[in-house]
Amino acid sequence: MAGVGLAGAGLAGGFAAGNATARTSAPSAGPAEGDGAFAFTGEHQAGITTPVQDSLHFATWDVTTQDRDEVVALLRAWTLAASRMTQGLPAGEFGPMSGPYDAPPDDTGEAEDLPASGLTITFGFGPSFFTAADGTPRFGLDGRRPDLLADLPHFPGDMLEDARCGGDLAVQACANDPQVAVHAIRNLARIAFGTASVRWSQLGYGRTSSTTTTQPTPRNLFGFKDGTANITSEESAAVDEHVWVAPGDGADWLTGGSYLVARRIRMTIETWDRAPLREQETIVGRTKGSGAPLSGGEERTEPDFEAAGRGGAPLIDPASHVRLAHPTSNGGARMLRRGYNYTDGSDGLGRLDAGLFFLAYVRDPATQYVPMQNALAKHDLMSEYLRHTGSGIWAVPRGVAEGATLGGDQGAFVGQELFA
Amino acid sequence: MAGVGLAGAGLAGGFAAGNATARTSAPSAGPAEGDGAFAFTGEHQAGITTPVQDSLHFATWDVTTQDRDEVVALLRAWTLAASRMTQGLPAGEFGPMSGPYDAPPDDTGEAEDLPASGLTITFGFGPSFFTAADGTPRFGLDGRRPDLLADLPHFPGDMLEDARCGGDLAVQACANDPQVAVHAIRNLARIAFGTASVRWSQLGYGRTSSTTTTQPTPRNLFGFKDGTANITSEESAAVDEHVWVAPGDGADWLTGGSYLVARRIRMTIETWDRAPLREQETIVGRTKGSGAPLSGGEERTEPDFEAAGRGGAPLIDPASHVRLAHPTSNGGARMLRRGYNYTDGSDGLGRLDAGLFFLAYVRDPATQYVPMQNALAKHDLMSEYLRHTGSGIWAVPRGVAEGATLGGDQGAFVGQELFA
Repeated sequence: MAGVGLAGAGLAGGFAAGNATARTSAPSAGPAEGDGAFAFTGEHQAGITTPVQDSLHFATWDVTTQDRDEVVALLRAWTLAASRMTQGLPAGEFGPMSGPYDAPPDDTGEAEDLPASGLTITFGFGPSFFTAADGTPRFGLDGRRPDLLADLPHFPGDMLEDARCGGDLAVQACANDPQVAVHAIRNLARIAFGTASVRWSQLGYGRTSSTTTTQPTPRNLFGFKDGTANITSEESAAVDEHVWVAPGDGADWLTGGSYLVARRIRMTIETWDRAPLREQETIVGRTKGSGAPLSGGEERTEPDFEAAGRGGAPLIDPASHVRLAHPTSNGGARMLRRGYNYTDGSDGLGRLDAGLFFLAYVRDPATQYVPMQNALAKHDLMSEYLRHTGSGIWAVPRGVAEGATLGGDQGAFVGQELFA
Repeated sequence: MAGVGLAGAGLAGGFAAGNATARTSAPSAGPAEGDGAFAFTGEHQAGITTPVQDSLHFATWDVTTQDRDEVVALLRAWTLAASRMTQGLPAGEFGPMSGPYDAPPDDTGEAEDLPASGLTITFGFGPSFFTAADGTPRFGLDGRRPDLLADLPHFPGDMLEDARCGGDLAVQACANDPQVAVHAIRNLARIAFGTASVRWSQLGYGRTSSTTTTQPTPRNLFGFKDGTANITSEESAAVDEHVWVAPGDGADWLTGGSYLVARRIRMTIETWDRAPLREQETIVGRTKGSGAPLSGGEERTEPDFEAAGRGGAPLIDPASHVRLAHPTSNGGARMLRRGYNYTDGSDGLGRLDAGLFFLAYVRDPATQYVPMQNALAKHDLMSEYLRHTGSGIWAVPRGVAEGATLGGDQGAFVGQELFA
């Protein structure tokens, strides 16, 4: 593979012996021009505070084996493959065309000529991973499920499709080249064959938020800037307060991890496109051009919800999206958002199936997501143009430590603390 | 919009008066770094010999009006909007946030901060545009349908889904940023509201062929280099012989145009990924690494179908893809291919719905596509791993002349010769 830097080359040498020592460079070191590699190891998994890449392939799996050892072997194999692919290497040590001629290749090959492209691969465990539908604990994980890892409640207006919800395991693959993100998920699915089966997957193309202050604010499919108030990696105190699970939060194995909430939110863009500019801005609570709050200022000016205009009417509608989603309306709760736009063909009724694949990382979904979504679903003027069609929640463990040995029968793996 | 060059700025001045004069720069002038603009006008529509961009949004529409004048008005409005969007301008003269405050914006806004990104927009007319299902001519186009513009025959193994086939009108939007390609199709759909309804749409992400010799050969989802023998824009004699409709070909209004064949070809990648490397290479007829024919040499070495190895067996299997798709197996027929990889989630059975969205431009589909596809469907070893799920054919008219006036009630439009 092209684009493998020195760290990757060293890693490849390790893999040739069937094992590897994880690279020890700083986890925040990122690609210069979108082609490079982010470190796979670190205190936290990559792909959360990492600057948001251009493309997403997200997938969930249902575990089909009953065998705890097979699950551990899968997680170990996934960890090794992920550590390689994120460094621009093939998923397996031989790659797509250098292995035994009468065996299937250990990499599928479509990313062979492509650089690492900023690929990150982030793993999570869903509620159903711990507990079967009849309440029986799975894989000997009795008592290990965090109380906060509970299926999201039904929200007003939810139109969820079972085939777009849940999954025992979830993987978020983000890269600056969609082919690299697709390649990553596909190879994980190949490795999981016989142990876990793909439940659903979702592609996303335009990021709808930034996780660093240096990334320009992108636009969602309503044509508005999105994610202006997102938590950025530069706000380390806010990241610690709102994103990472801390000791004492109720599940020690998840310390240093986070909870991931995913929502597939279809937008009725054809209806939106026939709404007057005035109505669109009232609904959002910001101008369509600069993204400034309707109370005035620039994009990053704090909204003034008390400001009134003619006749004493508030400049920002109390039922606007910016008002209801604002931390002051939600007990100070904030989230780290990492969503993407999606377009999945058309619906057979002349409309595009397009919208937002919402991804958010929080320390406590019960206080940071559920109340806000309840308020939005009930009161947000924007709800008329939204249909939540997919949903899921996963516990995202801490990262694999820098310098850990990966691969083989004893290598470190993501989620290892859960099985300790 | 960012990234509008001098030509675009001049164009904007023209649009402000409700009309525009098409820019006159050379149609082959392309963006330097993927951000720039290709000329919209020229002898041929852009998006055919244009260097293949990174992303595709393809859509087809069914015309819902019976009124010829409304169809012409739609084509005129589409032409104007396409000429603007390809230059990095909003679809309409006001754009997403500068128009009348109590009217819907004339652009949806999600590409507002993005450069032209090499966008091309290419229009085509399907057989059903000319003739209703009961055989009645539509829109006064009696006798204007080219004989070659006929629905493709049923091929062995076809598993076509009606919701992925056909369409009166087709638009191929290609860009180096998927958000720009999606924005283009969405705004054309917005403009068509009430006149034509989206029938289906397809996103593609990794090009599977090159149209210039300077583009590296990409890989398809089988992990092999694809499109090595494609017609490139540098082969001007081959382009004239195999791509552009010439006077006397049977439909004068289509002179300078082409026929577009689209096939949505699902790949059973999970099965493929379990096939040994030896079998994969035998099926393709090339090595997975360099893409060289199994008869030896490098990627661009001409395959030697007579070369034999041990025991006199041919080095390239007579039922391999490279053999059956080769011009020497097809009476010298060649195509200009412009396909993309696609991944549309999963199929509910644990498999990704992924494959190739095949797009090819030919002068004569009856000799350049149909016999080859018949041979492939019957004999190609690869067929076991392919499922054709979507299909369509469209006549793609010549380009709008450089310098033509666009917009208003009298402006030039793509397909104008058909309505002359």
